[in-house]
Amino acid sequence: MERLWTENLRDIEPYVPGEQSGEQDIIKLNANENPYPPSPKAQEAIRNFDTQALRFYPNANATSLKQAIADYYHVGIKNVFLGNGSDDVIAVAFQALFNSDLPIVFPDLTYSFYPVWCALFNIPYKNYPVGDDFRINAEDYREKNGGVIIPNPNAPTSLGEGRAFVEKLMDYNRDSVVIIDEAYVDFGGESSVELTKKYENLLVTGTFSKSRSLAGLRIGFAIGSEKLISVLEAVKNSYNSYTVDAVSIEAGRASILDDAYFKQTCNKIIRTRERVTAQMRELGFTVLDSQTNFIFATRDGMSMKDMFEYLKTKKIYIRYFSVPRIDNYVRITIGTDREMDVFLENVREYVK
Amino acid sequence: MERLWTENLRDIEPYVPGEQSGEQDIIKLNANENPYPPSPKAQEAIRNFDTQALRFYPNANATSLKQAIADYYHVGIKNVFLGNGSDDVIAVAFQALFNSDLPIVFPDLTYSFYPVWCALFNIPYKNYPVGDDFRINAEDYREKNGGVIIPNPNAPTSLGEGRAFVEKLMDYNRDSVVIIDEAYVDFGGESSVELTKKYENLLVTGTFSKSRSLAGLRIGFAIGSEKLISVLEAVKNSYNSYTVDAVSIEAGRASILDDAYFKQTCNKIIRTRERVTAQMRELGFTVLDSQTNFIFATRDGMSMKDMFEYLKTKKIYIRYFSVPRIDNYVRITIGTDREMDVFLENVREYVK
Repeated sequence: MERLWTENLRDIEPYVPGEQSGEQDIIKLNANENPYPPSPKAQEAIRNFDTQALRFYPNANATSLKQAIADYYHVGIKNVFLGNGSDDVIAVAFQALFNSDLPIVFPDLTYSFYPVWCALFNIPYKNYPVGDDFRINAEDYREKNGGVIIPNPNAPTSLGEGRAFVEKLMDYNRDSVVIIDEAYVDFGGESSVELTKKYENLLVTGTFSKSRSLAGLRIGFAIGSEKLISVLEAVKNSYNSYTVDAVSIEAGRASILDDAYFKQTCNKIIRTRERVTAQMRELGFTVLDSQTNFIFATRDGMSMKDMFEYLKTKKIYIRYFSVPRIDNYVRITIGTDREMDVFLENVREYVK
Repeated sequence: MERLWTENLRDIEPYVPGEQSGEQDIIKLNANENPYPPSPKAQEAIRNFDTQALRFYPNANATSLKQAIADYYHVGIKNVFLGNGSDDVIAVAFQALFNSDLPIVFPDLTYSFYPVWCALFNIPYKNYPVGDDFRINAEDYREKNGGVIIPNPNAPTSLGEGRAFVEKLMDYNRDSVVIIDEAYVDFGGESSVELTKKYENLLVTGTFSKSRSLAGLRIGFAIGSEKLISVLEAVKNSYNSYTVDAVSIEAGRASILDDAYFKQTCNKIIRTRERVTAQMRELGFTVLDSQTNFIFATRDGMSMKDMFEYLKTKKIYIRYFSVPRIDNYVRITIGTDREMDVFLENVREYVK
C-alpha cells in the first residue's frame, strides 16, 4: 500500500540523455562533442587555478566571464546571462519568459528537451512540422502564441536559417518573446546576436560545450535586452545564486580570450564535415547541408537503424532516433579526420 | 508604454546573497565560508585533472562522486542525489516533493531561501515561530501540512537539535515528506542520515561548501530512500542532466576520501569557536551554544548594527540581519585563530 506522503511527489517522465559508454577505445560520434581538446589557455587556467580560494563562494554574478562574453559579442555586461550549461539557461528562460496561457511554439523535429521543460513547468506548447526538406517555415509562426523557441541551426536536422528568416520571425512575433538557441552556430551558422539590439523581445542562447570543447565544465549563456536579462537574473537568483563555479568562470574566460584557437578548431571541424559529407554522398547517402558539428544522413533502401547497430559492433557510436519522420536517419558527430576515416571505411564496408 | 510581450515575463523578487567584497585585505566572517583551504588531495585532483577530457560531457549520474558519498555515509548509491550546490538540491526537492495544496512548514527564523523557493514554485507555506530561546519546538509540527523543512543545526541561530527531536518530527509527520537541511552538521551537530533507513519520507541534505571548503565548486547532496531519490532524479533529469561538472566530481571525490583532513579542519573550527564564544561571553555578550561554523551573538544595551558597521570600517566583515526578533544580533563566521584574535581585539576596543 502506498503511504499518504507519496501523494505529493511529483510524477514526471524525465529526459533520457544519449548513451554514454565507459569504454575507452570507441569512436564516439554520438553526443555532438568536440573532437579537439579545449583551448590550451583554458587548460592552463585550470592547472594554475588558485585551489585554496575554493573555500570562497564564486562571484554570484560571474562578472569576469560575463564581461569577456560581453566584449566578445560587442554587447554590455547587462545583456549577458550565465548558467550551468545552456540547458540550465534555457530552463530558466522557460520559467522566466513563458508565462502565458497560450501555447509556446517550436518545430516538431528539434531539441527533445523543449517538451520536457514544458511538462516540468506546466507550459502549454504546440509544434509546427518542419517541411519535407526539414526546413522551418517562418510563415507557420504568425499565429498568436505564448512564446517561440527555435534552434538555429536546428538539431538533429543540422540545417541553419539566415538573418532574413529571423527578421521575419521577429516581425510576426511582436507580442511574444522569441528564443533562438544557437548551440551549434559557431560551425557555420548565422548568429542573431546583433539582432538583440534591434528587438528587445529576442533572446539568443549559446553554450561552451560544443565549439569551445568545454562540455565537462557546464557553461551556457544568453544574450538579450537588459529587460529580458534582468528577468532571467531574478528567476536564477530565486533558485540558486551560484550556478557557475569558480573553476568554470576562469577556464571559460580563458577560452573566450583565445580566439585564434577557437577559430582554428571550428574551421577544422567544418572542413572535415564538408569532406565527410561529399564522401557519404558518393556512397549513395542523402546528407543534409549541415551548419553544425554533425551531419544528418539517410540512404534509400537501407536501414539506418541496422547501420547504427552494425557500427556499434565496430566500436563506432553514432546516434539513431526512433522518432517518426526521421526513423531512417542517423546523426553523426564530426570527429577528427582520423576518426572519420575509420568511420567512412566501416560505412563503405557496410554499404558493400 | 510597456509592450505586450512583457506581460508574460515572470515578476519575482529574487534572493539577495550576502555582501561580497572584492577587497583583498579584509577579514571575511560574513558568508560562513571555511577559513581553511580544501583538502590537499582535492586541490591535487584539480591540478592533475585531465583537462583534455573536458570536451566530453560529465557522467550524468556523477557515479564516482555518488559512490564515494554512499560509502562514506553507509548507504547505497541509489540513496544519494547530487546537485549544483545544496541550493540546487533543495530547490529540486521543493519542486519534486512539495506538491500539496496544504502549506509546507518551517521555522520563522531560518534559511531565507525557503520562502523564495516557495514563491518561485507557487508552494504555500506557514512559519512556526522559534521560542524566545530560539529553539524549535517539535510539538508545533504536529499539524497536518504539505511538507516540513528544518535546518539542523538551524541558521542563523546556530542551534542544533538531537535525534529525539527528529524522531518526534517523523512521528508527527507520517503523511508528509520531512527535509532536514544539514548544511552545518559537521561542526558538532547530530546527523539524521542514519534515520533515512528507518523513515522512507525523510530526506537529509548536505553541502561541500562549508565543512569541505569547496564553496567555489558547487557540490550539494541529499540522502534518502530510493523512492524519494528516484523522484528527485526524475525532476533533475527533466531540468538539466549535467548539473555537477567533471572537475567538481573529481575534486569532491578526493575530498570525501581524505577523511583525516576533514576531521582535523572541522575540529580546529570547533575549538576556535568554543574559545571565541567564551571570550565573547567574558566581554558581556550573550552567545548561543553553536553547533555550526558561526556564532550568533548580542549584547544588552549595545547596538549590534552599530558594531557591525564599526567592524566594517576596521575591514572586518560580519553579518547583520535587519529582521524582526533578531535585529540586535550578529552572525559571526568562525575564521582562523589569528583572524578571530583580530576580531576579538576590535570588539574589545568597541565595547570599551
